[in-house]
Amino acid sequence: MLESLTVPIVQAPMAGGVSTPALAAAVSEAGGLGFLAAGYLTVEALRDQIRAVRRLTGRPFGVNLFVPGDPAADQEALARYRDRLEAEAALYGAELGKAMADDDGWAGKLAVVREARVPVVSFTFGCPSPATIANLKRFVSTVVVTVTSAAEARLATEAGADVLCVQGFEAGGHRGTFTNTARIDDLGLLPLLRRVCAVTGLPLIAAGGLARGRDVAAVLVAGAAAAQLGTVFVACPESGANPLYKAALTNPVFPGTAVTRAFSGRAARGLVNRFVLDHSEGAPVAYPHVHHMTKALRAAAARAGDAEAMSLWAGQGHVFAREIPAGELTRALAADARSALVEALRRHPG
Amino acid sequence: MLESLTVPIVQAPMAGGVSTPALAAAVSEAGGLGFLAAGYLTVEALRDQIRAVRRLTGRPFGVNLFVPGDPAADQEALARYRDRLEAEAALYGAELGKAMADDDGWAGKLAVVREARVPVVSFTFGCPSPATIANLKRFVSTVVVTVTSAAEARLATEAGADVLCVQGFEAGGHRGTFTNTARIDDLGLLPLLRRVCAVTGLPLIAAGGLARGRDVAAVLVAGAAAAQLGTVFVACPESGANPLYKAALTNPVFPGTAVTRAFSGRAARGLVNRFVLDHSEGAPVAYPHVHHMTKALRAAAARAGDAEAMSLWAGQGHVFAREIPAGELTRALAADARSALVEALRRHPG
Repeated sequence: MLESLTVPIVQAPMAGGVSTPALAAAVSEAGGLGFLAAGYLTVEALRDQIRAVRRLTGRPFGVNLFVPGDPAADQEALARYRDRLEAEAALYGAELGKAMADDDGWAGKLAVVREARVPVVSFTFGCPSPATIANLKRFVSTVVVTVTSAAEARLATEAGADVLCVQGFEAGGHRGTFTNTARIDDLGLLPLLRRVCAVTGLPLIAAGGLARGRDVAAVLVAGAAAAQLGTVFVACPESGANPLYKAALTNPVFPGTAVTRAFSGRAARGLVNRFVLDHSEGAPVAYPHVHHMTKALRAAAARAGDAEAMSLWAGQGHVFAREIPAGELTRALAADARSALVEALRRHPG
Repeated sequence: MLESLTVPIVQAPMAGGVSTPALAAAVSEAGGLGFLAAGYLTVEALRDQIRAVRRLTGRPFGVNLFVPGDPAADQEALARYRDRLEAEAALYGAELGKAMADDDGWAGKLAVVREARVPVVSFTFGCPSPATIANLKRFVSTVVVTVTSAAEARLATEAGADVLCVQGFEAGGHRGTFTNTARIDDLGLLPLLRRVCAVTGLPLIAAGGLARGRDVAAVLVAGAAAAQLGTVFVACPESGANPLYKAALTNPVFPGTAVTRAFSGRAARGLVNRFVLDHSEGAPVAYPHVHHMTKALRAAAARAGDAEAMSLWAGQGHVFAREIPAGELTRALAADARSALVEALRRHPG
């Protein structure tokens, strides 16, 4: 499927309102692959978004689904974290939500992407069973599984994935790890690509900290069939991101990014704000429990215009985000990638 | 200077016995840039190694020097760490060394590289003063400063460096950070290159987790003038690494790498062994104090044939290390890099 793209650029699915039909359609119209993010949406909203994309473009696009994980959680750790966050919630006049597990409408959303025959369906937070993938492939042309290690790449290949999205340590937002536990080693994108290439022959989409055409070219040379970028698309006018979030990406007040469980109970990379500094250490390994607990608090912070308690997901390339239309960005990335390849060959004629 | 290399490959300086004149000469003879590591050597040994390289090759090579840091250290933290390590030392029948600061023979080694008119001199752990760099440039052709952030790149550029070595999060061995303090954000190599390119026009050597020709090609495309590889050269027959260390690089017993201060008091990436697991948390920020404290212990573990208490420095590409001659490795990396560029252009004709 990737070889049919005019430009080897994938717009990362970004749940929580950033991915919009307009954003996905603009990237697909420019020859890349736009993505909707099914995570946190209702089944009905997902169906509507798919229809909306199709009204805007006849080109291929993708939908990303969260694979449900272990619903068990340490209730005492959750209670301690709730106590800790009460003062935060009071500060913004918000109530903490109930810390509960759910499966993000798994069966309903699978049914929607099947019925709609969405061209590309990708998964994160795990790998669907071989049976689920085989069934899905009767309706959709390409199944992508997000992986963060060689072991996950092997599992996804054996389960029948068509393409792997290889997510390096540098990536913004939630890590796509199959389990929500501590890791001994999170690999940077280039070493990760090298290891994944060693265990699978599937086409790879490389993700993590990519911001410019040269970065795109680098991962193509390193063995990827396409590059996936998220954070630079957050700033586009078509993105649904809160203006505070867009502005924060290039605001030097934020000293960089960190991986934290503070907002959702699952590891995710975002700008380091007060909430990350104050609560990362105490945050339990409990997803989506903590997501539900902090959701209203984060929304209240956004309403109050305070980015210090919002989840500002960002990859390590965030400083390069600029508010330019997504189609223009996609075309510029592709043109610059091509120039970088030509230039490197000119400098190293062998 | 980098443009005069036949192949854009730099062999990373690896202190503690890994870098040898034979290794540096083999890489330089193959058209790359071999490096001696002055760190921990006596002034006399450094002089001898430079002579030895020159007997083996007439081509350019480099010498890396440690820039002295703040000699102050928390004596109570050091005492607590000593108490903690007593049982380790007893286990191997070793004595813990005196936790002291030194400047690694800074003035003497600078004099040696000046007198010997070493072609390339690189620095790590800091940036020499503009006066030191200006003086050195009267004797040596190229001064390289290792950087790990855009801020360090700006400082090194202003201080008069000719070339920057850009060290990503993935790199093995000691991090080249200018100060020995905790960082909010350690960037992966691609995002780091992007940020450094934005603040300096100097030629860049990219380092960190690179293992294969495709990785070399990727960083050339990303904007580097050359790629620096260390860990894959550890396994070469010309390297002075202990055979236990060489074997450990590809031994699945070690689950990956981590950044630790356990061995030296300064952040360094190595294979996760028992010592790293047991002592990383308690290790004080005190370099080179902790290096001196653990030196005899590590040597005793090596004599006992136990890799679990040795410092097994390794970057994230360690699994790809193979025992092949350094010249052959250098040539293969260059040829494969070239092929990767050609292949990427073929797949993306624009």
